[in-house]
Amino acid sequence: MSQEPRPDLPARPSAARIVRSVAELKAASRELLESAAGSRPDRARPASLGLVPTMGALHAGHATLIRQARAENDVVVVTVFVNRLQFDDPADYERYPRTLDADAALAGEAGADLVFAPGEAEVYPDGAPRVLVSAGDLGTRFEGRSRPGHFDGMLAVVAKLLHYGQPDAGTTVPTRYRAYFGQKDAQQLAIVQRLVKDLDYPVDIRPVPIVRAEDGLALSSRNQFLTAEDREAALVLSRALFLMKERAEARLPLRPDDAVALIESDARVELDYFEVVDPETLEVLAFNCQDTPFTGTGLALVAARVGSVRLIDNMPLTDGSS
Amino acid sequence: MSQEPRPDLPARPSAARIVRSVAELKAASRELLESAAGSRPDRARPASLGLVPTMGALHAGHATLIRQARAENDVVVVTVFVNRLQFDDPADYERYPRTLDADAALAGEAGADLVFAPGEAEVYPDGAPRVLVSAGDLGTRFEGRSRPGHFDGMLAVVAKLLHYGQPDAGTTVPTRYRAYFGQKDAQQLAIVQRLVKDLDYPVDIRPVPIVRAEDGLALSSRNQFLTAEDREAALVLSRALFLMKERAEARLPLRPDDAVALIESDARVELDYFEVVDPETLEVLAFNCQDTPFTGTGLALVAARVGSVRLIDNMPLTDGSS
Repeated sequence: MSQEPRPDLPARPSAARIVRSVAELKAASRELLESAAGSRPDRARPASLGLVPTMGALHAGHATLIRQARAENDVVVVTVFVNRLQFDDPADYERYPRTLDADAALAGEAGADLVFAPGEAEVYPDGAPRVLVSAGDLGTRFEGRSRPGHFDGMLAVVAKLLHYGQPDAGTTVPTRYRAYFGQKDAQQLAIVQRLVKDLDYPVDIRPVPIVRAEDGLALSSRNQFLTAEDREAALVLSRALFLMKERAEARLPLRPDDAVALIESDARVELDYFEVVDPETLEVLAFNCQDTPFTGTGLALVAARVGSVRLIDNMPLTDGSS
Repeated sequence: MSQEPRPDLPARPSAARIVRSVAELKAASRELLESAAGSRPDRARPASLGLVPTMGALHAGHATLIRQARAENDVVVVTVFVNRLQFDDPADYERYPRTLDADAALAGEAGADLVFAPGEAEVYPDGAPRVLVSAGDLGTRFEGRSRPGHFDGMLAVVAKLLHYGQPDAGTTVPTRYRAYFGQKDAQQLAIVQRLVKDLDYPVDIRPVPIVRAEDGLALSSRNQFLTAEDREAALVLSRALFLMKERAEARLPLRPDDAVALIESDARVELDYFEVVDPETLEVLAFNCQDTPFTGTGLALVAARVGSVRLIDNMPLTDGSS
C-alpha cells in the first residue's frame, strides 16, 4: 500500500547515487543512457552524458555547473575526488574538507544522477603515475607561479576522469559526451581544453560562466572570509574587468593600465597580476600596451589579495562581432 | 553477369581502403563494426576493433602484427603516420620512406580493412602540442639515452592515435577495442602500456611476440644491411638472450655477466647495453648481479652495433610458474 505524495508538497529530489569503482560507474551510466534513449520515440538521437569533475565540498558554484549539465544532457555524473597530486602543500591535502553525503545531496538536488567517488587505490593503484601529462608553459604562468606543479597534478587526474566518465563501450545507443568546467578557474579551463585538443579526447568541453553577486563580485567559497570592508574593496576587481569588457565591445584601445590604476587605488587590495591574454594560449596580447583598438577575442585575468584572502576573477572579451 | 572465380585461384585480398580524416575513419569503422555484429546470430557479443599503429614502410614484421589483429578482431585498422615529433634528426624525418600504396596493399594482404593515413594538419592542426605527455624516467634510459625526446614524441602521437582508433560514440553495438604493438620495441611497448594504465585509456594493449629467423636472429628491416659475416656474428645476441631464458625457466641464478661475456667474445659486436629489467618499470632487477635463483618475471634487453648496423633484441623471462 503506497501512499500518494501530497500534491501541495513538491517531490524533493533525492541524493545522487554514489558509486565507488570505475566498473560500477560505467555499468550505471550505461543503464541510464540506454533507458533515456529507450524512453523517447527517436532512438537514433544520441543519448548524452555530462561529467562534472570536482574535489567535493560542493557549494553553489558547483550547483551551477551541475544544473547546466542537467539542462544539456540525459545523464549527469559528478565526480568527487580529492586529488593529492594537485596540492603543493601536503597539509592542505590532509585538511581539505571531505563531505561526501552532503555532496551527494547537493548534487542530487542540482540534478545529478550519479556521484562517482573513487578511493585513492582506484585512481592511483600503482602510486603516482609514471607517464606524466604536463601543461608546459601554460601551467607555469599566472596561478602556476605561486603553485608549482599544481596544473600538472590537475591534468594527471583529469586525463583519467575524462576516460572514466566516457560512455561504456558496451552501450548500444549512440552517445554524446560533455564535461563541464567553470570559467572562474580560467587557467584550468584553458589547460583542460588544450589537453582535449592535443590528445584528441572524444569529449566536448563546456565552459560554465562565472556567477556574480548583484554588485559584480564573483562568487567564491573564499568570499565568506572577507570582512564587510574588504568585500566592498574587492569590488574594484570586477569593476576593472567590466571596464575592459566595455572597451572591448566598443572596439576601443583597452589600456589595461587604467584597470591596474583602478585596482591599486584601494589600499586594501594588493594586486598580484592583471593581464589581457589570448584565451587559448594565455599569452599576453601584444596590442595590450598600445593604443590599438581592440578586435577579436581576449581574456582579462586578475588575481589580488584583499585583506587576508586571495581572490581571482576574469572576463572573456570580445569585439562583439561574433 | 558476374563471372565465378576459378576455384584453383584463391581470391586475392584487395588493398585496404585508405581513409584520410578522423571523421572518415570513425564512420568507416563504425559501419564495419555494425555490419560485423549484424552478420552473426549473437548480437550481444561485442564487435571488436584492432588498431595497428605504424609509420608506414610496412614489412613482414608489420604483417605479423596485422595478422594477429585480424585473428582477434572483427575490424582491423592500420594507421600510417610518419610522426615528426619522434625523430631526433629532422633529416631522418625527411628521408623516411613514404610508400602508402604499397602499405595499403601489404596491409590488405595481411587482413586489414582500413589504412588510416592522416596528413600533418589532421594530426597537428596547431603545430606541436602544448600539453605534453612524457615517459619520464622510462623514456630516458636504454634506447632513450641515444635518442633524447624520442619516446615523448612517440607518446604525443600514440596518445592521439588511441583516441582516433576508438570505436565511434555513434556505434549501436557493444564494442571491444585493442591496439597492437610489437615486443621487438620492448621499451616502446612498456611505455605505451604505462600510458594506457596511467591515463586509463579504454583500450587493451596486445603485445605481439618477436619473429625470429630459424637461427634465432630477430627479424628487422635493418638485417638487410648486415654482411654475411656480420649476420653470423649477430647471432650472439639471441644466444645470450636464450641463455637467460633457459636459466630463468630452470630457476637458476641468471648471471647476466655470462651473457655479456658471450656477446663480447665476438670482436665484430660492440655491446651498448645488456640488462635484465622489470618488464613494467624497466628498472634493473637487483638480484641480477647476485647468486639468487631467478623467480617471477623479467625482461632481458640488449642493444649492440654489429658492423655498421645497430641492432636491438629482447627476451621476456619467466620462472615457468605462470
